[in-house]
Amino acid sequence: MSDDNKKELTKEEQFRQKALDYHAIPTAGKIAIALTKPADSAQDLALAYSPGVAEPVREIAKDPANAYKYTGKGNTVAVISNGTAILGLGNLGPLASKPVMEGKALLFKRFAGIDSIDIEVKHNTVDEFVNTVAAIADTFGGINLEDIKAPECFEIERRLIELCDIPVFHDDQHGTAIVTAAGMLNAIELQGKKIEECTIVCLGAGAAACACMELLIQCGAQRENIYMLDRNGVISTQRDDLNVYKQRFANNTDKRTLTDAIEGADLFLGVSGPNLMTEEQIKLMADKPVVFACSNPDPEITPELAHSARQDLIMGTGRSDYPNQVNNVLCFPFIFRGALDVRAKEINIEMKLAAVEAIRSIAKEAVPEEVLKAAGVEELSFGPHYIIPKPMDPRLLPRVAKAVAQAAVDSGVARIALPDGYMDN
Amino acid sequence: MSDDNKKELTKEEQFRQKALDYHAIPTAGKIAIALTKPADSAQDLALAYSPGVAEPVREIAKDPANAYKYTGKGNTVAVISNGTAILGLGNLGPLASKPVMEGKALLFKRFAGIDSIDIEVKHNTVDEFVNTVAAIADTFGGINLEDIKAPECFEIERRLIELCDIPVFHDDQHGTAIVTAAGMLNAIELQGKKIEECTIVCLGAGAAACACMELLIQCGAQRENIYMLDRNGVISTQRDDLNVYKQRFANNTDKRTLTDAIEGADLFLGVSGPNLMTEEQIKLMADKPVVFACSNPDPEITPELAHSARQDLIMGTGRSDYPNQVNNVLCFPFIFRGALDVRAKEINIEMKLAAVEAIRSIAKEAVPEEVLKAAGVEELSFGPHYIIPKPMDPRLLPRVAKAVAQAAVDSGVARIALPDGYMDN
Repeated sequence: MSDDNKKELTKEEQFRQKALDYHAIPTAGKIAIALTKPADSAQDLALAYSPGVAEPVREIAKDPANAYKYTGKGNTVAVISNGTAILGLGNLGPLASKPVMEGKALLFKRFAGIDSIDIEVKHNTVDEFVNTVAAIADTFGGINLEDIKAPECFEIERRLIELCDIPVFHDDQHGTAIVTAAGMLNAIELQGKKIEECTIVCLGAGAAACACMELLIQCGAQRENIYMLDRNGVISTQRDDLNVYKQRFANNTDKRTLTDAIEGADLFLGVSGPNLMTEEQIKLMADKPVVFACSNPDPEITPELAHSARQDLIMGTGRSDYPNQVNNVLCFPFIFRGALDVRAKEINIEMKLAAVEAIRSIAKEAVPEEVLKAAGVEELSFGPHYIIPKPMDPRLLPRVAKAVAQAAVDSGVARIALPDGYMDN
Repeated sequence: MSDDNKKELTKEEQFRQKALDYHAIPTAGKIAIALTKPADSAQDLALAYSPGVAEPVREIAKDPANAYKYTGKGNTVAVISNGTAILGLGNLGPLASKPVMEGKALLFKRFAGIDSIDIEVKHNTVDEFVNTVAAIADTFGGINLEDIKAPECFEIERRLIELCDIPVFHDDQHGTAIVTAAGMLNAIELQGKKIEECTIVCLGAGAAACACMELLIQCGAQRENIYMLDRNGVISTQRDDLNVYKQRFANNTDKRTLTDAIEGADLFLGVSGPNLMTEEQIKLMADKPVVFACSNPDPEITPELAHSARQDLIMGTGRSDYPNQVNNVLCFPFIFRGALDVRAKEINIEMKLAAVEAIRSIAKEAVPEEVLKAAGVEELSFGPHYIIPKPMDPRLLPRVAKAVAQAAVDSGVARIALPDGYMDN
């Protein structure tokens, strides 16, 4: 290509190329296997494989719990997808989802030391997917479901939780819900309101939306105060086009549009698409509203527009370049860390609520120097522009993991007690 | 425990404890995940995960071959078992097989740099097992089946090869067969015989036995010169208790017992059980016989007994403490290395035969200093006590992998050509 033909790459094109290079150079992908035991001499190999390996085999055959002692099971989480709802890109199939699943595995290792592997599953029917995952579940200490489209994801998760004796957690639902709830509850508190009394509008009715609303209800929100909207408008008892999952949020109301619903609302959650909310709609909300516009990368309304519409709101988005980023990485590595460390049989509501409270409490405390540095700011203190911790906050691991592990023990789903001094350092 | 109660551990007990400690201390298991790309800054994570990860997703959705470029698929082999035939221990179920599968993964990494993960599958029926493995196959560059009992293993492998567009290789069959054939052909050559003219006795009729005989036939052995024995004696056309796999070896013969069959035989392969062969039977064999007694840890006849029975034999076993160890690790890491490096769709007979020849040829060449050192000997040269390379021989990786990759290309199952200068250093 001659210089004449060379075009300047836009910033966006540069980033795209950088992302491709990151994945391709110098080796394909971003995770690998490492050995944790010596494997140099013939003697090492005699312990690692035949004949020595027969000993742990016999011990596990005697008592399955010994798998946690002699194999990697207890520190391994499978990130499993069928690729039917990849990021914002839709149904591109299992193979195309692999970079995302490997990315999730990278985050598990990076943030919580969890050995995570990706599994892409070719089946699209619920039965086939469930049977496949249940058949290989013994391999792992936990299963993180990812990027599976609604409404199938609900039944898939429910049935796998029934079939498996290890935690099964659909992060797009529950990770999102936990971080959203932590941020929203802190924002509401700052606005001087009570969740029990808030009117809530949820734009979007997919997996994340439903999970967020269910968790807010567990935190005190009243189901009748929630207006959820899908593409056809407000989900109400007068509609006959609702699946069973949406029906749970059907309100007996005459409201039809977002404008109808938003009037007087205290809380808005957007998990829908870009630019679906206007300044006028923001102005219709109650005093001191909370607006979480989480569509990514382009929110339902930009913070600039929202703040120009009114001064008294607290806002969150899914983006790292605005304050109050709602980011699942605040939760999933740590909720699994806590669950794995007490060999929990599941991740139950008690553990989820414990994670919400742990995340909330960290935001209210003085911020460590290294977090300020990573965020490139001089100061951060609990307030409208800082309602949830930053992703790189080193307090997340010990605090969330410990709270979750303790909740597992207290609620009776842990197989072992918290190790002495767990996460104290 | 007081000193009075402490009993001296036998050497065997000490080894057992050492094997358990190896697997448990300081962490459970022996493999972990490592990151191959930077994951420290927010910018790193924006490339590894959202939003950057969308780029490789899009590229793979456009062309599935891009999965080899942007993900770990091309260097990942799954070691998959249902635990129905674990080592010599039998059917102990999938979970108990996990230490073996993790051990195999460790060997893949150690010997060929292949990132290998273990998957234990709960289903025992052929249909369920095949469906499960086929559903997750997109995740990997190759599948190593392991410790699956016969005769199910034959159909499982056949169907998975049909369903998957990546190599599926049951190492207990083909890895064993390749190394056995390499050793036997070298031994026969040393004895001045031709495989085409040899009478062969195979004691054992399981997965390894059948695969070894089929491969020897591909190398020139005559099917009618093979006498295979199961628990009920010589497999002959006069028996009506044979499954289809054994029927392929049914000889029209009146021979019934091992003693009947061994008379005048040139080659004996034992893949059965300890001490099933006597000195008297060895004495019945033809001049200059070859005896591979591969039952592990206790062979069909010990080298001491065999050699005391006659001087003119060449012997191999499965044990590292005798000369001529038949060890699968001479093959499986390298045959997969070669297959992966040209993105082979399968491991076909041409590739298996190329592996046999590469292993054979290494044994005939001068042995590097480091191999002598590792083996603790002053000298090793091609002859009755050195017919196959040692497991730690560094020539195996480049030579076997290159021969296999070239055979894949030549036989039309490779997706790409050999990289320039492949394995030259």
